[in-house]
Amino acid sequence: MTEPLKVAVAGLGTVGAGTVKILRDNHDLLAARCGRGFALVAVSARDRTRDRGVDLGDAAWIDNAAALADTDAEVVIELIGGSDGPALELVRNALSRGKGVVTANKALIAHHGLELATLAEKNDAPLTFEAAVAGGIPIVKALREGLAANRITRVYGILNGTCNYMLSDMRETGRAFDTVLEEAQALGYAEADPSFDVDGVDAAHKLAILASLSFGTRVSFDAVHVEGIRPIDPVDIEYADELGYRIKLLGIARLTDDGLEQRVHPCMVPKATPIASVEGVLNAVVGEGDFVDTTVYEGRGAGAGPTASAVVADLVDIARGNSLPTFSVPVSALRDAKPVPIDQRAGAYYVRLMVMDRPGVIADIAACLRDHAVSMEALVQRARAPEEAVPVVMTTHDVVEASMAAALVQIGGLESVVEPPRMIRIESL
Amino acid sequence: MTEPLKVAVAGLGTVGAGTVKILRDNHDLLAARCGRGFALVAVSARDRTRDRGVDLGDAAWIDNAAALADTDAEVVIELIGGSDGPALELVRNALSRGKGVVTANKALIAHHGLELATLAEKNDAPLTFEAAVAGGIPIVKALREGLAANRITRVYGILNGTCNYMLSDMRETGRAFDTVLEEAQALGYAEADPSFDVDGVDAAHKLAILASLSFGTRVSFDAVHVEGIRPIDPVDIEYADELGYRIKLLGIARLTDDGLEQRVHPCMVPKATPIASVEGVLNAVVGEGDFVDTTVYEGRGAGAGPTASAVVADLVDIARGNSLPTFSVPVSALRDAKPVPIDQRAGAYYVRLMVMDRPGVIADIAACLRDHAVSMEALVQRARAPEEAVPVVMTTHDVVEASMAAALVQIGGLESVVEPPRMIRIESL
Repeated sequence: MTEPLKVAVAGLGTVGAGTVKILRDNHDLLAARCGRGFALVAVSARDRTRDRGVDLGDAAWIDNAAALADTDAEVVIELIGGSDGPALELVRNALSRGKGVVTANKALIAHHGLELATLAEKNDAPLTFEAAVAGGIPIVKALREGLAANRITRVYGILNGTCNYMLSDMRETGRAFDTVLEEAQALGYAEADPSFDVDGVDAAHKLAILASLSFGTRVSFDAVHVEGIRPIDPVDIEYADELGYRIKLLGIARLTDDGLEQRVHPCMVPKATPIASVEGVLNAVVGEGDFVDTTVYEGRGAGAGPTASAVVADLVDIARGNSLPTFSVPVSALRDAKPVPIDQRAGAYYVRLMVMDRPGVIADIAACLRDHAVSMEALVQRARAPEEAVPVVMTTHDVVEASMAAALVQIGGLESVVEPPRMIRIESL
Repeated sequence: MTEPLKVAVAGLGTVGAGTVKILRDNHDLLAARCGRGFALVAVSARDRTRDRGVDLGDAAWIDNAAALADTDAEVVIELIGGSDGPALELVRNALSRGKGVVTANKALIAHHGLELATLAEKNDAPLTFEAAVAGGIPIVKALREGLAANRITRVYGILNGTCNYMLSDMRETGRAFDTVLEEAQALGYAEADPSFDVDGVDAAHKLAILASLSFGTRVSFDAVHVEGIRPIDPVDIEYADELGYRIKLLGIARLTDDGLEQRVHPCMVPKATPIASVEGVLNAVVGEGDFVDTTVYEGRGAGAGPTASAVVADLVDIARGNSLPTFSVPVSALRDAKPVPIDQRAGAYYVRLMVMDRPGVIADIAACLRDHAVSMEALVQRARAPEEAVPVVMTTHDVVEASMAAALVQIGGLESVVEPPRMIRIESL
């Protein structure tokens, strides 16, 4: 058997501890699968004294994470997090020295992936990030290898477990966003500063990575249109249910002749689609290819075990000598795709208005829609309360977003419309 | 760029034609992903004259498939089918000459996998079979690589699209097995001789392969307990629905301290489990690992496009130089696991009896259950028709199958029980 692969771990939070635990608990199994074992030669974390419940063996403690690149580790596992700072410094150092890097850091890859992939190629060092997207689901491998025969036409999914948990909870309990968020924070499902999750940034990082892998395009996080779930009201969830939909925060990427579409926002999806029934903290990703048709991958998107499972899967690939270019093809082969702005999105829309219940209101709204060639599919005004505000909900036929947006501006300006219109895109997946 | 990888295709049915089509249509994409193209150097099929709608270019026609091993192809794609005969001969020949083999042939791998893997190792030639299990779903890769960090504890799934299509149809239309089978045959979803599919043999082939990959055990098809869907009656599907279940033909493999459990049979699964809502010709596989928890993979299990997608994914791995031992670890490292016989299965059961509606019948049945320590969970006797036969349906608490079976023998012998008892295992997945 070959010598053990020497690894160093930067960051000993739950995922770091989970990674060490797998390397310990499943050592023999891994050695059989790889033809070689793993040796933990160095670690770096903020607090040396904390008990993490795992055996660090005789791994050297290195205070400055970036200096892990100077140890005899052949692969550095970066679990520090953050798109810049020590994580970026460590990864740059490690790759520059020809060491492999395994990371769970989506922000880092979304922002600096191209630079780092170039560095990896130059130094013939693997750079892998299965754990950065959808935790335990081996979606990076599926897109890069399992579906490699296909021209991927679309990739989309539930990429943020916190949002999915909150939306599931809001639907089940009818409670409002703020209440559910507080509870999610208390349970540890949401961070103290939840904005990365609930505002869609985390999902956007992951989507930018998936898009690059799927389409062979240069990672372009800045081109992702991002909206979060804060504006979702329990009443929208109720109407969605009534109309046959579930509300999910989806990341959707599509490459067409018009260019690259990348967007993260709440969607109404038909209840019968597989993704509609993915509840709680689960993630799910759908990959569509020209030959394979539709494939769905579902599992835990976060947590020590699943994320560490993905980290170690990358290590196993490296130990087995199976490495690929970071984004599946060499950086020089990645294409620049023109971003398709969100106002070119074509599809159906759900719109909720608060209007004064008086004659002629619906006619005024209908006239606004007509002016922008938006065709109404259905309209519901259930409550009656003359001269008071009542909700009016409507769905449209497929229309380009620019027209919808213009119609909503006009509708929002009507005297009888007393709140800004709420709009949720309907995705026929 | 490296020279193109020379491939030969044996069998030009739908999957063979689909494979050639991918190599043609996506040639540039594949070349970018692999750093090299593919050249089709030889083909073999029964009928030279048939138009298969694909461009075979200047590939040499070889009448004797086994002789493809003597061409200058570096990889032979075996799509002939059948566990023995020309398929086996070709694969043996190709591996003996150090050529790689890609196959979609589950029967071949289930029956001769160990012999062929040994031959592959001896000649340092890759032998791959992603297309043999669950068509377009990259489940072999997921188990062998994506979940490689985990001790897999259980793997199960809907492995036969024909059965799943038929069960979905029976549920939706209330029609009987024979009627649905005839229609499935007319539509091309079932073979003229449907027994491989409907009797569970095809699913058992796939399960034996998945078990070996998951647990690192020697493929042992003969140890799979196999039952098909012929005995499923529409009335059972109705009762299942009422009790909160769907009936699915599942393959289930589990490795415990008692040994290796491998079984294919109709199951009642709770409607809320992801697998319950997988309908029609779709396949789904669930892998459970000690760190990753539960992961679900869903997609098309058959058809030209999806199966060819899996064939070419294997080719891509080979072209990229990423090869692994056939069953993930070397043959010498595969373990012999003691088979756990079906009568040791522990779980709940659904039982349907036809009984004469007369006083004391239920007491007699209850006495039989008591004699074998089977605990009843629920009993339904809806129809009343004194001195006529009426259905009685019951579910049990968890019990060992040997006890259940003995109780059913005793119940079947009661004078008032006028048909052999029907039993379906309830799986709490």
